[in-house]
Amino acid sequence: MLACGAADFVLVDAREPLAKAGLSLIHAQACYEGKYWNTTGIARHVTVEALLPEMRRRGITVLSHGATGRGNDQVRFQLVANMLAPDIEVYAPWRDETFLAAFRGRGQMIDFCEKRGLPIKASRSKPYSTDANLLGLTHEAGVLESLQTSPDVIEPGMGVHAKDAPAAGEEMEIRFENGAPVSINGARVSVLQALEKANTLGGKHGVSIAFHLVENRFVGIKSRGVYESPGMEVLGSAYAYLLQLVLDRRAREIFDELSRYIARQVYQGYGFDLGSRMAGAAIAETAALVSGTVTVRLQRGAVSFVSAKNVPHSLYSEDTASMEAVGTYDHADSEGLLRVLSVSARALAAAGQVKPRLLE
Amino acid sequence: MLACGAADFVLVDAREPLAKAGLSLIHAQACYEGKYWNTTGIARHVTVEALLPEMRRRGITVLSHGATGRGNDQVRFQLVANMLAPDIEVYAPWRDETFLAAFRGRGQMIDFCEKRGLPIKASRSKPYSTDANLLGLTHEAGVLESLQTSPDVIEPGMGVHAKDAPAAGEEMEIRFENGAPVSINGARVSVLQALEKANTLGGKHGVSIAFHLVENRFVGIKSRGVYESPGMEVLGSAYAYLLQLVLDRRAREIFDELSRYIARQVYQGYGFDLGSRMAGAAIAETAALVSGTVTVRLQRGAVSFVSAKNVPHSLYSEDTASMEAVGTYDHADSEGLLRVLSVSARALAAAGQVKPRLLE
Amino acid sequence: MLACGAADFVLVDAREPLAKAGLSLIHAQACYEGKYWNTTGIARHVTVEALLPEMRRRGITVLSHGATGRGNDQVRFQLVANMLAPDIEVYAPWRDETFLAAFRGRGQMIDFCEKRGLPIKASRSKPYSTDANLLGLTHEAGVLESLQTSPDVIEPGMGVHAKDAPAAGEEMEIRFENGAPVSINGARVSVLQALEKANTLGGKHGVSIAFHLVENRFVGIKSRGVYESPGMEVLGSAYAYLLQLVLDRRAREIFDELSRYIARQVYQGYGFDLGSRMAGAAIAETAALVSGTVTVRLQRGAVSFVSAKNVPHSLYSEDTASMEAVGTYDHADSEGLLRVLSVSARALAAAGQVKPRLLE
Amino acid sequence: MLACGAADFVLVDAREPLAKAGLSLIHAQACYEGKYWNTTGIARHVTVEALLPEMRRRGITVLSHGATGRGNDQVRFQLVANMLAPDIEVYAPWRDETFLAAFRGRGQMIDFCEKRGLPIKASRSKPYSTDANLLGLTHEAGVLESLQTSPDVIEPGMGVHAKDAPAAGEEMEIRFENGAPVSINGARVSVLQALEKANTLGGKHGVSIAFHLVENRFVGIKSRGVYESPGMEVLGSAYAYLLQLVLDRRAREIFDELSRYIARQVYQGYGFDLGSRMAGAAIAETAALVSGTVTVRLQRGAVSFVSAKNVPHSLYSEDTASMEAVGTYDHADSEGLLRVLSVSARALAAAGQVKPRLLE
Repeated sequence: MLACGAADFVLVDAREPLAKAGLSLIHAQACYEGKYWNTTGIARHVTVEALLPEMRRRGITVLSHGATGRGNDQVRFQLVANMLAPDIEVYAPWRDETFLAAFRGRGQMIDFCEKRGLPIKASRSKPYSTDANLLGLTHEAGVLESLQTSPDVIEPGMGVHAKDAPAAGEEMEIRFENGAPVSINGARVSVLQALEKANTLGGKHGVSIAFHLVENRFVGIKSRGVYESPGMEVLGSAYAYLLQLVLDRRAREIFDELSRYIARQVYQGYGFDLGSRMAGAAIAETAALVSGTVTVRLQRGAVSFVSAKNVPHSLYSEDTASMEAVGTYDHADSEGLLRVLSVSARALAAAGQVKPRLLE
Repeated sequence: MLACGAADFVLVDAREPLAKAGLSLIHAQACYEGKYWNTTGIARHVTVEALLPEMRRRGITVLSHGATGRGNDQVRFQLVANMLAPDIEVYAPWRDETFLAAFRGRGQMIDFCEKRGLPIKASRSKPYSTDANLLGLTHEAGVLESLQTSPDVIEPGMGVHAKDAPAAGEEMEIRFENGAPVSINGARVSVLQALEKANTLGGKHGVSIAFHLVENRFVGIKSRGVYESPGMEVLGSAYAYLLQLVLDRRAREIFDELSRYIARQVYQGYGFDLGSRMAGAAIAETAALVSGTVTVRLQRGAVSFVSAKNVPHSLYSEDTASMEAVGTYDHADSEGLLRVLSVSARALAAAGQVKPRLLE
Repeated sequence: MLACGAADFVLVDAREPLAKAGLSLIHAQACYEGKYWNTTGIARHVTVEALLPEMRRRGITVLSHGATGRGNDQVRFQLVANMLAPDIEVYAPWRDETFLAAFRGRGQMIDFCEKRGLPIKASRSKPYSTDANLLGLTHEAGVLESLQTSPDVIEPGMGVHAKDAPAAGEEMEIRFENGAPVSINGARVSVLQALEKANTLGGKHGVSIAFHLVENRFVGIKSRGVYESPGMEVLGSAYAYLLQLVLDRRAREIFDELSRYIARQVYQGYGFDLGSRMAGAAIAETAALVSGTVTVRLQRGAVSFVSAKNVPHSLYSEDTASMEAVGTYDHADSEGLLRVLSVSARALAAAGQVKPRLLE
Repeated sequence: MLACGAADFVLVDAREPLAKAGLSLIHAQACYEGKYWNTTGIARHVTVEALLPEMRRRGITVLSHGATGRGNDQVRFQLVANMLAPDIEVYAPWRDETFLAAFRGRGQMIDFCEKRGLPIKASRSKPYSTDANLLGLTHEAGVLESLQTSPDVIEPGMGVHAKDAPAAGEEMEIRFENGAPVSINGARVSVLQALEKANTLGGKHGVSIAFHLVENRFVGIKSRGVYESPGMEVLGSAYAYLLQLVLDRRAREIFDELSRYIARQVYQGYGFDLGSRMAGAAIAETAALVSGTVTVRLQRGAVSFVSAKNVPHSLYSEDTASMEAVGTYDHADSEGLLRVLSVSARALAAAGQVKPRLLE
């Protein structure tokens, strides 16, 4: 920025809060439209929150960003800034008529920069654009816009394609305490270190590298993204294996609901509003119960379960699950349960409510 | 059965309706607790529905099954039979005191059979039990009850472990019309053939073989299952890629809700009640829109997107997705949108509703 | 319109489709934010749909409306028109800079009309504005904007305030067949006639007259509405009493979900999209089961249950509900049920998941 | 109890925790199947929780209750006791074969008591049974089982029927702070006092007296209840009016979801499990924002809004709601918003996803 003529430049290190925000998404298993770990969405929240104190300190009243007028990021920057600092003005050159009159597209922009010798990285030949942060990469636009282009064209930034990963694979033991990863393969880690380690190992084994998704943007149009988020996927999957042990059916039902809600909220830039706080408070009740050691295998893009132990809040009992040992209730009790269920099932039939065909 | 002394035996071929029922699950993307394709759950529905006409024909009034008193299947058999045929009695030896007095477990049962020379397949040394049908396999109990046992111990019945699959992988082109798979790699297929083909190819590449899940049973206890469902996973994933193109944000929201609902309903044996019919009617509206050709790559357990074409109801446009082409609305319009959103975001701040912290 | 100088004028009678659309809302019990019967929201859909054929016939390509730039109606007109007729242009003077430059508010508009002798009804002294159709009235703005103004200030358009209704009240017997009201007090009625009759009787007894709601508009700001919808409330309540007899617990769960979804969709102008069609298809499964005769009492604003009969799909049995007669399952069966439930409840305790405090 | 021969008797005063539990339901607006304030459901939780310390003190290890084998209460007592005190045995005579052999119904029970001179209140002539606590009354069974019996037959225990209430009605001003009622008509009150006062005033004006509901019991059968809960309805409605001012659209969406979830949980006896704690934690975020003074009118059974003031977290602004004052965004901005929305609406049309018919 200084080389481009900025009067001053400050680098704010937000890796720690970003890692913690990533962990919040893992707690909520908050993937947008089922798949995308919201790595860019959450980063917009953290970025604005992290910049504000520095802006206040310097009396800066305008937050400027380079997001264009068709994407999600303009919405996220605007909403987060407006909520956290309603007095701050948000300025986006790509929505400013004066600016737009001068630059009709990326091409002319690059021309301008090159002519003035501004040290930009983008080039006309770059076949797609990439947004990067600690949690993941988002590739989109350019050649990726065609659904005839396979995600194979991506040059991975956080690891290798699954097909190029070592055949052998590798096991990884992660210990969580009250929802936080505290050790990996026996070594103590901070949340940030856990994410970095998971990024390294996940990336090496092609986990969540070049993941395809056609998604619904906030503004109502569809876009295609190809994502990388190895660390989020590794930690998120390991966490999910512990969640399976802890959540009973009723908690699972509301958890899944809140999970999708939070994913939408963060994706759309509403991660700081009341609804997100409500959902977050609910999820925090579950995170507090997730302690345990889980071993996963990373191999050719997959994160699979190997084993789990020391899970104090687990509802899974190797004894009660047995089909042989009838433990604390016996077959006659099941008979009673079924007789009770049977009354309502037969009532449905008697009321003409049952039609003998499958789902549709 | 005849060898065991049955007076008569009838084999009812329910593969066709079972394949169609599997397709219904794919339409709803109905995986229980996020992961399990409900292959056993739906099969119980189809089995009872398929047996009833034959039972009626022969004047049989008792449906007997071998499910034990702690699992889901006793519930499913009971509910489906009670709904479809409230006059039919359901008899389960494993919940009958007389029977239980004679056989205190699998061991004594096997003794009994062996002594009488009954041709059973089970053996005392089989380390876990398996339920199998066209849609998938469920392995559970025995050594699998320990969370220290990796799913690697499974001897796959529908293919190979991902780690043993050919490195090269293989592409597979599937054409759907109004929700139904109609051709694979250019050859016309029925729904049943599509599933069989997908089972073969998916199994060969280790797709959804030995998939671990600790789940909440209907009766409230947790159990661990290791699943195989290569064909469902292959077709289900390919279908999901098309759904991404077709469902707008609002439809996606209710779709995801219904998807989880149907998964619970089928898992618990309520696939024929009013609630399931409601959800099924809603899902059918979406299946009618899912036409298109999608190519996926099967490789080392993964089903990944390669390309898609000829999707008439697609909302994805390679043009409007472009960040360069501003098409039908311009940046000034986005400015207007954001000013509108900004009012409510600032109102939240003014009302003291925003707290600058992440999700929890 | 002719008196104002319009070249031509056509009156399209949309009362029949509007009444049917109202019935759809009753089927879904689709009240926005819990209370408002969406009477204006649904009318915008019906209005546009009803006008289009006439516009096509005359080659008209612009749909103009008088909704302002801060309300919901501009959104509804736009979305419905764009969906049903994407080629039609929607023009709103209140969002046209040229028009706005000439008229800075309602006041100047009224001046203009009076000066030219245009026969308008609005007057500067009218203390609030009203939108009216067959399904209901929406009063808002003006003196109603102050939360110190009680809904008592409303001069009812569809009946009387509850406090002014006759003390005696009146019973009303309504027969529904497959979801549609077919007779009232023994006389056959069409859907439109049923609604008109219910408006008359409900209005007479102060039902849903001057109903207060502060709601969230589509554009994100809150507004206060005072509503009248006597017929919708009378028929909707009577229908609800039958629904209570028909929906089992599982159907109720998804019904309530869909109900709120449809209410949001219609309120926001998305009543014709895929999501609404999905929800509508699900609700239709329930409407088909709602047949029966219900008697309600209208008295001083209330619609209360008196009796119900001839409900073929009812799940309510006067016998099984009895606490004395234990009918089809006995107390020992309940003991079995409870033993089964007890296992999971105790497992929660054993896993340290229970904290002895109430909800919060 | 002493008169019946009990060795000892202890009265545990749980009115305070019961009132607070009632307030939790108000915070969640947790009415079961849309209508019933869960007054008996929550009381079972509070009762068991309140009794346990006394039982521990005296070394009592068996909790006995008189709920029958077809209702909800047996389930609630069992689950709450098992969760809070898994070591305590729950004994229900009405599910004990020995006891049942001696008493085949209420009749024989009453005979037995009368013969021994036990001072019971029930009589053979009582036409229905009633369960009562501070939060409300539940009337059911007997003559109420017939849907031909109007709720008019109820002899109210907490007030008068709406038709018998004074015509004049009465205004009531309630101040909430952080979710708790702190003053009524200017006088400071505790939560318990607020509920008692609301019971008195609500009852006097016929609010929520003899409220009819046919509901789905936990065991799957339908039952009819006629309820009284004047205080819950008065406070709950007043609270709802403030909630309308505080919850934005997104918070409302998840609030409504959680509201129904909590209602089901408490109804079914799961008010202490993880899912309830999750939902409660989310709701607590909203309760903390509900401060304000609201005036309601109680008249002939209705609780209607009169006015509201001093609501610090209100999102409602009398200025921005104005249709005249265009405040912080102008009509051109709306034009921008609509152009953006228009793109997706037209895309739906272009993709053949729109069908011009109403909901079903």
